[in-house]
Amino acid sequence: MKNIYFDHSATTPMDSKVLDEMMPYFSDKFGNASSIHTFGQDAIKGVDIARDRVANFLNCSSEEIVFTSGATESNNLALRGFINFLQKKNKGKLHIITSLIEHDAILEPFANLEKEGIEVSYVMVNSNGVIDIDRFEKLIQDNTVLVSLMYVNSEVGSIQPVREVGKIIKKINERKERDWKKMRTKDRGGRPQKMYFHTDATQGVNFLNCDTKYLHVDMFSMSAHKIYGPKGVGALFIKKDTPMEAIQLGGHHENNQRSGTLNVAGIVGLGKAVDLLDEKNIKENNEKISKLRDMLVDGIEKNIPDTVLNTDRESSTPSHAHFSFLGVEGESSLISLDMEGIAVSTGSACASGSLKASHVLLAMGIKKEIAHNSIRFTLGKNTTKEEILRAIEVLPPIIEKLRKFNPIYKK
Amino acid sequence: MKNIYFDHSATTPMDSKVLDEMMPYFSDKFGNASSIHTFGQDAIKGVDIARDRVANFLNCSSEEIVFTSGATESNNLALRGFINFLQKKNKGKLHIITSLIEHDAILEPFANLEKEGIEVSYVMVNSNGVIDIDRFEKLIQDNTVLVSLMYVNSEVGSIQPVREVGKIIKKINERKERDWKKMRTKDRGGRPQKMYFHTDATQGVNFLNCDTKYLHVDMFSMSAHKIYGPKGVGALFIKKDTPMEAIQLGGHHENNQRSGTLNVAGIVGLGKAVDLLDEKNIKENNEKISKLRDMLVDGIEKNIPDTVLNTDRESSTPSHAHFSFLGVEGESSLISLDMEGIAVSTGSACASGSLKASHVLLAMGIKKEIAHNSIRFTLGKNTTKEEILRAIEVLPPIIEKLRKFNPIYKK
Repeated sequence: MKNIYFDHSATTPMDSKVLDEMMPYFSDKFGNASSIHTFGQDAIKGVDIARDRVANFLNCSSEEIVFTSGATESNNLALRGFINFLQKKNKGKLHIITSLIEHDAILEPFANLEKEGIEVSYVMVNSNGVIDIDRFEKLIQDNTVLVSLMYVNSEVGSIQPVREVGKIIKKINERKERDWKKMRTKDRGGRPQKMYFHTDATQGVNFLNCDTKYLHVDMFSMSAHKIYGPKGVGALFIKKDTPMEAIQLGGHHENNQRSGTLNVAGIVGLGKAVDLLDEKNIKENNEKISKLRDMLVDGIEKNIPDTVLNTDRESSTPSHAHFSFLGVEGESSLISLDMEGIAVSTGSACASGSLKASHVLLAMGIKKEIAHNSIRFTLGKNTTKEEILRAIEVLPPIIEKLRKFNPIYKK
Repeated sequence: MKNIYFDHSATTPMDSKVLDEMMPYFSDKFGNASSIHTFGQDAIKGVDIARDRVANFLNCSSEEIVFTSGATESNNLALRGFINFLQKKNKGKLHIITSLIEHDAILEPFANLEKEGIEVSYVMVNSNGVIDIDRFEKLIQDNTVLVSLMYVNSEVGSIQPVREVGKIIKKINERKERDWKKMRTKDRGGRPQKMYFHTDATQGVNFLNCDTKYLHVDMFSMSAHKIYGPKGVGALFIKKDTPMEAIQLGGHHENNQRSGTLNVAGIVGLGKAVDLLDEKNIKENNEKISKLRDMLVDGIEKNIPDTVLNTDRESSTPSHAHFSFLGVEGESSLISLDMEGIAVSTGSACASGSLKASHVLLAMGIKKEIAHNSIRFTLGKNTTKEEILRAIEVLPPIIEKLRKFNPIYKK
């Protein structure tokens, strides 16, 4: 029997159409995209098409796209590159905001910036794993220069109110500018510092509207391998005039914002992966996956007592079904399922092997013991009804058996 | 007629054996290498094999290999990550040394570090494009913490005395340590600061001994796409106990030294590319290419008057033949050759489009006008005699014609 994959949030199988489009760039069109000759021209043509596709998908200009090695690099560039630039101009203390449920690729740069003297605030989330807009607004200070907020949480799938946050930031920036213009020229001083908005959209791209103008974002991180493209390539949208200093130097590629020989085949793959995400495909896919998730959740809840569903279906992408099976370590369930040929996760693949309870679940107010009981199913565009039925069949006896090993668990 | 590629220093066509080895990791074995389940295990197995191959090639431990997105990232990490770490411990001014002929991926981080207050020295080269060891030794100061020197220059192909430099650094470190041990305990103060040695070996890997113990290097940057592997992946050897702070944060991959989902297929490709570089293959390839280069140089010099060969064959890798054809802009020659289906370069692909004369040629004492006349042929393992003969046939009339357009050039 073929192994079943329920871990699409960790990575996705590459779409064969993506690979087909990449193949020529491994062989005939192998040139360096910076070379002037025909081999170079063939390569840059592929990159240009990909750049246009990504720009089209994000509704921005192709000059606003910087290709990177993945979302982690995009996030690090968005935070560190932005702050490095601003720190050289601003003498005062800078303040930045993020949420308690971000990926480590946001939280760690934030922690590092805090160590270096940047003021940092973390916005709380409610029990559904969605940030609290009112609390967010109260965190904004006069010296707030950057807000970074994920589009979709990777663990539970909760969708964050990115557009609403974008609108709030825009309004405040406009008010600041208006007030400044009202002042008499001699009293004005320098133009007020704008607040900028970054979203780590890695987990949202498959499912949600990624129009950067609609979302009112200044920076937008994405990764190819989460959307049926290759690993090792991603992009960062950087809106024109956003402060930015390159981190990776040498060679002046990507408008001087990210040096290094372009990963042509990878970029072509990212372009194709985005191209497959048209509105119709997204809608159909969302509907299909949503139904399968409902089937999974209903089947599990019906057949396994003491199940907690940590994903709120109303406020999440259709991909996620994040459970806690009381009294059973998530890792034990994972391993038992894997022995039956079913791949799930305990949360984030990046932090797997760690004994710490998920910071996301704790922020949602879930107790540590229950957080340790968690298993994440993430469905993808190729997930089938048969696979769901198999999971519903296989999981209940596994949980029952594992609970028998736990002397503390009482039915 | 098939286009002829003489730009192997910019990038190389991927070896079909490399692609074959990568293919399963695009489809069946698509898992995230951090995942615990079978899909993840399949992925990490591929990465482990690649890591062992690279470690074997560099004669180091596999824990000393950090996979990156390419040599540019490796270089940036080696310089910035090292200095960031040291600056947090050392209060005094740090001094670092590099050469005048490095790639921009070294020179730009150096320039940035200098702006931030690090003391920087640049070692001169002789007319063959090889650094002057005596001058290098004189640049070493008590506060020198890092030397970064390329293995092979990308433009003219000159091999740098990396092993000699490594030995000098080792000797000085040993002497410092000995002197310190001789001091009475109460007079000693802190242990003396070691000097570390990094080499950007990107252009040397195809041709030279890359045993990091033989070379006495602490860090070693390499790229897959220069050795018939894929673009978008590289490695940095970081010898155990070398000061290092990650730049790309989040997820704790690569021993906490470089976060981000592993580019499994790319890493597998790098591993295979290195695996193909066994001692026998390198030797045979060097002999073959060397003969072809001699044929090219002799043919060109015989058939084109006023030719300057900027590559010193004695002190360079067999790949390079870097010419100046007096009175003819390099870019004009390049474009004319491209129209005949022959791809060459004016120097570094990364800086192409720039009107500045090559900093490498200027450092070698070549006049600006002559530097502008330059064309680089770089041969590869698939270069054939027929291709060389074709170049010798096509180029002389091109140069003759272009010279006619130049009123200043007199025969």
